Amino acid sequence: MAKIPNSAYYGVCFLASIILNIFLITNPNKGRWNNQLKGWSDGAASEAEAVASIQCSGHGRAYVDGLKVDGKPVCECNLCFQGPYCSEFVPDCPADADRHDPLFLEPFWMRHAASSALLVAGWHRMSYVFPDQTYVSEELENYIRKLHAIAKNAVTDGKYIAFGCGSTQLINAAVFALSSQNSSSPSRVVALTPYYPLYKSQTDYFQTAHFEFGGDASLMKNNSDASQLIEFVTSPNNPDCQLRKGVLQGPYVRTVYDHAYYWPHFTAIPAPADEDVMIFTLSKLTGHAGSRLGVFAYPQLYYNPSFVFARWAIIKDKDVFDRMVTYVTSAELGVSKDTQLRALKLLKVLTKEGNGREIFDYGFKTMMERWKRLSQTLSSSTRFSLQEISPNYCNFYDKVRDPSPAYAWLKCENEEDTDCTKVLRAANIIGRPGSLFNVENRYVRLSILRRQDDFELLLYRINKLVKMDVKTGQSM
Amino acid sequence: MAKIPNSAYYGVCFLASIILNIFLITNPNKGRWNNQLKGWSDGAASEAEAVASIQCSGHGRAYVDGLKVDGKPVCECNLCFQGPYCSEFVPDCPADADRHDPLFLEPFWMRHAASSALLVAGWHRMSYVFPDQTYVSEELENYIRKLHAIAKNAVTDGKYIAFGCGSTQLINAAVFALSSQNSSSPSRVVALTPYYPLYKSQTDYFQTAHFEFGGDASLMKNNSDASQLIEFVTSPNNPDCQLRKGVLQGPYVRTVYDHAYYWPHFTAIPAPADEDVMIFTLSKLTGHAGSRLGVFAYPQLYYNPSFVFARWAIIKDKDVFDRMVTYVTSAELGVSKDTQLRALKLLKVLTKEGNGREIFDYGFKTMMERWKRLSQTLSSSTRFSLQEISPNYCNFYDKVRDPSPAYAWLKCENEEDTDCTKVLRAANIIGRPGSLFNVENRYVRLSILRRQDDFELLLYRINKLVKMDVKTGQSM
Repeated sequence: MAKIPNSAYYGVCFLASIILNIFLITNPNKGRWNNQLKGWSDGAASEAEAVASIQCSGHGRAYVDGLKVDGKPVCECNLCFQGPYCSEFVPDCPADADRHDPLFLEPFWMRHAASSALLVAGWHRMSYVFPDQTYVSEELENYIRKLHAIAKNAVTDGKYIAFGCGSTQLINAAVFALSSQNSSSPSRVVALTPYYPLYKSQTDYFQTAHFEFGGDASLMKNNSDASQLIEFVTSPNNPDCQLRKGVLQGPYVRTVYDHAYYWPHFTAIPAPADEDVMIFTLSKLTGHAGSRLGVFAYPQLYYNPSFVFARWAIIKDKDVFDRMVTYVTSAELGVSKDTQLRALKLLKVLTKEGNGREIFDYGFKTMMERWKRLSQTLSSSTRFSLQEISPNYCNFYDKVRDPSPAYAWLKCENEEDTDCTKVLRAANIIGRPGSLFNVENRYVRLSILRRQDDFELLLYRINKLVKMDVKTGQSM
Repeated sequence: MAKIPNSAYYGVCFLASIILNIFLITNPNKGRWNNQLKGWSDGAASEAEAVASIQCSGHGRAYVDGLKVDGKPVCECNLCFQGPYCSEFVPDCPADADRHDPLFLEPFWMRHAASSALLVAGWHRMSYVFPDQTYVSEELENYIRKLHAIAKNAVTDGKYIAFGCGSTQLINAAVFALSSQNSSSPSRVVALTPYYPLYKSQTDYFQTAHFEFGGDASLMKNNSDASQLIEFVTSPNNPDCQLRKGVLQGPYVRTVYDHAYYWPHFTAIPAPADEDVMIFTLSKLTGHAGSRLGVFAYPQLYYNPSFVFARWAIIKDKDVFDRMVTYVTSAELGVSKDTQLRALKLLKVLTKEGNGREIFDYGFKTMMERWKRLSQTLSSSTRFSLQEISPNYCNFYDKVRDPSPAYAWLKCENEEDTDCTKVLRAANIIGRPGSLFNVENRYVRLSILRRQDDFELLLYRINKLVKMDVKTGQSM
């Protein structure tokens, strides 16, 4: 090893220290890009306005990331419309009531174009983490609490909020976290029929040693072998939109409440939800299904807030919570910062417009009117019936209010109509069959939360079908 | 049933038809919001420019979604800086070389502020799907192909591209898809030491009946029990940055190539990658680790392009592919549309600036210079050594080029320094211990891809440590 005199060593250290000092002092000028350079956002703003001004006859839309023809964005037409300006109705186009994007909220966002516009800088949030080393934006969390307080639909005081990538990830996280850690007696995941098929498909897909799908919750009330049960309770329920409570109780039962539709748009809110494990999601609140954001809330007493979800949930057991955190951080390193930024902007608009009431008034009014028109159309039919939803006291409106469900849960009443989807298909209507919800195909789910065009076409076809029956009934 | 005369029935049908026609014809005026209303993007643009103009001494940044004081966004300081303008160096702040956000690319994006700015409308892409019913933007896919063609680092002709939420999800998808479907003989997931710990932690976490972690790939060469093996090959490797090929062969072996770092920033590109299953990611290409986007590419011969990933991969087996699609669609219903939009904007900038070469020139130059300075600093030390990376022919530059790795893989050479992380910690440097990569703690990984401030502080501390040793060596 080369020998260096002591004095030279100190000299080198001193020099290195000076170099670092100079770097740290002069670096501001490097880092500080030219702030006199104003107007760097002009191009992006003009591009967005130009694309938004493209006319698509009200039956389509051009997007900045859409396909281009000759370098220009073109109209992307809604279902059943075509042509360069989406002005032509596609002949015999089926009324698609299978899909469930909550596009009825699109006009709300167009009406609030200015307040909901968002400019993202190229260098925005490049890190994995926020400065407090969490994966979640503190501002976003604050706005979620604010919104629950306005909607009066959930208790968030004394609870942590966490996020994940869409509902599916949170359902998985809950099952992984709540399931038995003893692989010789796996937990059973159950839900009351009719239930959302994702609970089954997700559970089946993973095929781990720790849990399996157990089917209908009502069959588990005895639970004679004392196995651990995880009950999913969707309230309001998908597909029939009824408010629900868990049917199982006891020391072996863990209940997960999926409150995706527990907003004044879709249901009366009898009281703020305050269960142990609760999941919420952005898509049914703002309509941004494409943004894939869900959120969790859980009691502060037990938990550490350092993780991020995209639906909400609540838990009371430290081990369970730790497993949940492991699942989410391990699976995602947090939700995209772009999604969080967008969600924040949207929630700011919601909490601002009409003192935070406008979105709920708009959503409730739109869905209630659709439900009324559909009910009326079907009222003359004996062949088809709809689920009954009673008017109920609503904590948000502080009065009894009419129903405004996201789905019609249609039943074919005639004995021979065992496949109701087929009956509707013959009338050019696409629904989702009951078998997907673990009931007979005499039931079918019809989405009524898409665009107004979609709803009008559906109503038109149903009306025609009902009238045809009336006619057939009469001629018989 | 009420009897309605035939004529009345036809009258009702006709009326309903007329109503629908009127709705469809008049609706354009409803859907067409006031396009004369220009300037709806102005507020968002001004807000972003105002936030960007906040001075944080070059050692921090304000963000539109950051915390606010008195309603104004405040500086968020980089590591080791504090104060309202981030102008104060935190005394004795450790040099954190454990974290691995690729923030060295931040100045590139600030330099291209105008072209990388993005304005998102409130109603942008609210659906789960794009108009072609896929979860992925066709434009984004086109730009990914274009970028690979420019970088000359992967063959994408004749291959599909798919996306997922960050690398972790794609690693899981690959394991779920490639593993044995016979639970009595689970697949073993293996990787050559030193390997990226996520392969093990992910595999262990899921604990399914179909796969388990099998440890070091080199121990599996005999594979005497003919079990199915899934070998992960990271090339260049994390932590030692060496180019690699799979070490296992034969009918029971499936190989997954993780090419996260296979870009001219970090390595010579000997030839375009053309393996069967390949994964890429956005975070190491553009530096946007927070955006959680990875992508997949795979031969068109076998597959259906209707799914979305956030890293790239390639597969040749129809069953495997189908399982992969199931995993991703089931787990995510596609990646956030906001993330896709942001990625598209960033890739447009990359392909445009300097004919698509600027990002690679910038990345290569920055990382090469850091490596040179670090190597030089350590060259006088006998106590510490660095991995050797030979200059190599690069397909992108069409010449032999110097190394520019993302990580220094440091070894403590003195016999007594069995815990090299501890040695560094005493010198106020945080590294990631070898044990996390399945080797002895005589090795430690140091990230050199963060901000220039972080690198300078690391280099300063290493320099001090090396000089101290030289002094100690001399005084002994």
